[in-house]
Amino acid sequence: MPLATIEWVGGVDGCIRLIDQTLLPTELKYVNCDDTKSIWHAIKTLMVRGAPAIGIAGAMGVVLGAKAIGTDEVDVFLRELNKVVGYLGSSRPTAVNLFWGISRMEHTAHANKGKTVKQIKELLLQEAIKIQNEDKIICRKIGENGAGFITDGVGALTHCNAGGLATADYGTALAVFFKAKEQGKQFKVYADETRPLLQGSRLTAWELMQAEIDVTLICDNMAAHVMKLGKIQCVVVGADRIAANGDTANKIGTYGVSILAKEHGIPFYVAAPVSTFDLSIKSGSEIPIEERSPEEVTNGFGKRTAPEGVKVFNPAFDVTPAKNITAIITEKGVIHKPSPESVQAVLGRRV
Amino acid sequence: MPLATIEWVGGVDGCIRLIDQTLLPTELKYVNCDDTKSIWHAIKTLMVRGAPAIGIAGAMGVVLGAKAIGTDEVDVFLRELNKVVGYLGSSRPTAVNLFWGISRMEHTAHANKGKTVKQIKELLLQEAIKIQNEDKIICRKIGENGAGFITDGVGALTHCNAGGLATADYGTALAVFFKAKEQGKQFKVYADETRPLLQGSRLTAWELMQAEIDVTLICDNMAAHVMKLGKIQCVVVGADRIAANGDTANKIGTYGVSILAKEHGIPFYVAAPVSTFDLSIKSGSEIPIEERSPEEVTNGFGKRTAPEGVKVFNPAFDVTPAKNITAIITEKGVIHKPSPESVQAVLGRRV
Repeated sequence: MPLATIEWVGGVDGCIRLIDQTLLPTELKYVNCDDTKSIWHAIKTLMVRGAPAIGIAGAMGVVLGAKAIGTDEVDVFLRELNKVVGYLGSSRPTAVNLFWGISRMEHTAHANKGKTVKQIKELLLQEAIKIQNEDKIICRKIGENGAGFITDGVGALTHCNAGGLATADYGTALAVFFKAKEQGKQFKVYADETRPLLQGSRLTAWELMQAEIDVTLICDNMAAHVMKLGKIQCVVVGADRIAANGDTANKIGTYGVSILAKEHGIPFYVAAPVSTFDLSIKSGSEIPIEERSPEEVTNGFGKRTAPEGVKVFNPAFDVTPAKNITAIITEKGVIHKPSPESVQAVLGRRV
Repeated sequence: MPLATIEWVGGVDGCIRLIDQTLLPTELKYVNCDDTKSIWHAIKTLMVRGAPAIGIAGAMGVVLGAKAIGTDEVDVFLRELNKVVGYLGSSRPTAVNLFWGISRMEHTAHANKGKTVKQIKELLLQEAIKIQNEDKIICRKIGENGAGFITDGVGALTHCNAGGLATADYGTALAVFFKAKEQGKQFKVYADETRPLLQGSRLTAWELMQAEIDVTLICDNMAAHVMKLGKIQCVVVGADRIAANGDTANKIGTYGVSILAKEHGIPFYVAAPVSTFDLSIKSGSEIPIEERSPEEVTNGFGKRTAPEGVKVFNPAFDVTPAKNITAIITEKGVIHKPSPESVQAVLGRRV
């Protein structure tokens, strides 16, 4: 059972408790956030990260924001809550789950505007916890739907971290491995370290080792060579936002891995909850790509490793076109050969 | 004019003075090596690196070895020198220039066995300095032969460091950029940082900035995204060993870049001196690939960034097949569409 990345502690006057993922794997430290500013900062600086987890963090952040609104008038409360939602949404632009989480919270508040502010605050807390519990069920279901792609003796490659730390519980890409392991399968995972912030080495390798899955760490630029050596039979990654046609934004480097997989005839799977889909956009070209600080590249680990004043380009995500994706594994089922039609067919299903 | 990476100081009783490249760009420190053990260590730990530069380091290392042989008997001297050559050759297995450099020195000694030991020692020093001077001329010639591929307004990508620090003077891949700059062309270079040891960020970015060339640093896994954005019109890299058919071993990650270039319709150039060719091997599958310490990946920045006990695969090189290479730029001319025939045609030329 993975550690809880994020949880709500106490009642409506409580706080968010989360693992500071920037300190892993050398230090396991829990941090309490009891106002919107601190959770905004935690999202921005990647103390909490992973598309589903920041959806939950955003939802719980709305509860923190609600707590601080000191009025009994529902109209005033809703107006203030609207500002909270806007503020939290400014923390990270690419992962759609953040917007999905905070919008759902906003909707809950408005749907209950006939009730008292105190009652709405209670309902908001219930909704945030519901989002988290739903995510746990979703992660398990993604694992079940994807584990069939892992067969005995395969080597699988993953990029970045789409594990328990990135979700409420079990992960998306890593859920596939966790489930395959529970099924008693023997397989190896290669984890791309994932520059600049090394989520692959710091988080994925750590989670897989804890689950006693055979994991080997490589630098991102070694993936092609490892594929050529015949060590990889499938790639499984997570997603931060998926367009209506199946184009998928995920951690920078994912697009390159999809090209390498195609070159070597290796299937490429994306594992993601339905909440990662943004059907309001037709293709990946409409997804905004967050650019982050140059210091993540030049001063990665407390030591300067590039010349002073060097220009840096540091996009946090890239977009893998649907044509490079063999299938998208969701909690509602597997979308083979993603297209507007195949996406719609699976997303339209009832769970 | 680039800094001298490596030089011989004094006469036959002198020593090698080199820049400790592991400390760049934050510290410019010169180190003296006055015995074979210290130069072996400098090659092994990448204080001096880059295929041509370690060819020179190896040749100068033979002079250090000769200095320490305390006999006047030529037969004994040559036997001892043979051991020196074997020892120096064990420092790094992939770059052929090392073997080329030390073999040439051994040949010089044997060709002069009618002379006294003192005279042979003098001739060895002259030969090592000749190798270095030849390399300077070769670098300039590679730059001239390749600069035509850089046209006004292009963006070029390079991987690892094949600049002045990797050679006697001007570089191989970077010679192309230095020459194009001298010709007054306007262009941009994107430098892959090149994990695990960051030669791209530490050395290439530094050298290009010193030459006032517009350089932007990216992580290795960003190259595909940058290509998709239309920012790259050519790739230029160096080489550590080239087989008779044009298959090219270079820094790990180069093979992946060649696939990404092909996918985006971008020409891919290798710039390397003739001494990098190993015509004794037919194809890249015969090139031994050095594996280096896991700590380069797990403790790369002076700080542990991966779980204790994690398995690591750390190959230092990969092989780019000739079919992914648009042309190889040598001092003797450009080998278009590398093949056994086109390689032979250019290498057979007189300079």
